[in-house]
Amino acid sequence: MGRVVYDMSTSLDGFVSAAGATAEEPLGIGGERLHAWAFAGDEVDRKVLGDGVGSLGAVVTGRRTYDQSLPFWGPNGPTGEARLPLFVVTHSAPASSPEDGVYRFVTDGPERALAEAVTAAGDKGVGVMGTDVARQLVRAGLVDEIVVHVVPVLFGSGDRFFDDDGQHVELEVLEVVPTAAATHIRHRVIGPAHGSR
Amino acid sequence: MGRVVYDMSTSLDGFVSAAGATAEEPLGIGGERLHAWAFAGDEVDRKVLGDGVGSLGAVVTGRRTYDQSLPFWGPNGPTGEARLPLFVVTHSAPASSPEDGVYRFVTDGPERALAEAVTAAGDKGVGVMGTDVARQLVRAGLVDEIVVHVVPVLFGSGDRFFDDDGQHVELEVLEVVPTAAATHIRHRVIGPAHGSR
Repeated sequence: MGRVVYDMSTSLDGFVSAAGATAEEPLGIGGERLHAWAFAGDEVDRKVLGDGVGSLGAVVTGRRTYDQSLPFWGPNGPTGEARLPLFVVTHSAPASSPEDGVYRFVTDGPERALAEAVTAAGDKGVGVMGTDVARQLVRAGLVDEIVVHVVPVLFGSGDRFFDDDGQHVELEVLEVVPTAAATHIRHRVIGPAHGSR
Repeated sequence: MGRVVYDMSTSLDGFVSAAGATAEEPLGIGGERLHAWAFAGDEVDRKVLGDGVGSLGAVVTGRRTYDQSLPFWGPNGPTGEARLPLFVVTHSAPASSPEDGVYRFVTDGPERALAEAVTAAGDKGVGVMGTDVARQLVRAGLVDEIVVHVVPVLFGSGDRFFDDDGQHVELEVLEVVPTAAATHIRHRVIGPAHGSR
């Protein structure tokens, strides 16, 4: 069984989207800046991106990310031509979805969606997208690694990487890959930090 | 004239303090975790800390940081035995302050405090402490570098590194020094990002 990995790009100040999100700009005004590293053409950045997607066999996300992203993803989902199955946590499946799409809707919560994704992924890993599902799975102790692409920009506001009110979560740095476009940091999730509330 | 540097430790998710701050624990419950790298005894971390303080000739901060930290700093201020002058931005000087302290109170705003600190620092740099003063000086285009010590922990809540509602601020990565305790990233401040609001 592969690892469960929460992989996300953030601004230096911890935002995963900018303020002012709309249907046309789900990442907010100027929010696409966070993904510039993936298109920068730098060989090292491309390798980070390729290794990340290449290690996965399935992906889990929340309904909000699905709704926001479907117009951009089309039937192939977030992994494009790799067409990895995307398990969407939702209260109820949408009335319609692309007929040849990679989408599977799970109404029994994030842990159930993850279990189905793990089965579908076989020997490969499972990617977690979307801050809310990720937060719940991290809290449940079900995320093995957190990969953060820290982008050299300050947003000041927007959606936060880990918006939570519970105990701190202790991590261990496994690898740091710095490029001009982003500092890629891979962590192992250790668990709740002692001494935090 | 030296550089003006905003130097700060943050959690991976962009918090510079934890929730639940009190007079005894100004960084919140478990917030001291952010400074563990400075005491970890790792040679590389110690060099980062030493080079940072060693490059400075004066420091600027806000009244809130001063009030919170004075019990811990005593007369020497944040730089300990180096005893660099600390310029505190305040509406009015406090009734009392340590007689042999390094503190100088400036009631004409952060830009005036910075100007006095620059004069005091001579050839050396000026450090900026405290998120509110830092934010105002970054907005005014008066901060040359931002040094962030990214600590492998998720806080989920607390005070934010750059709590702001204006245009994004574009940075350039100058240096990344990864250790087990923190990823130290030095940036040059480029300025307002195009395409953000």
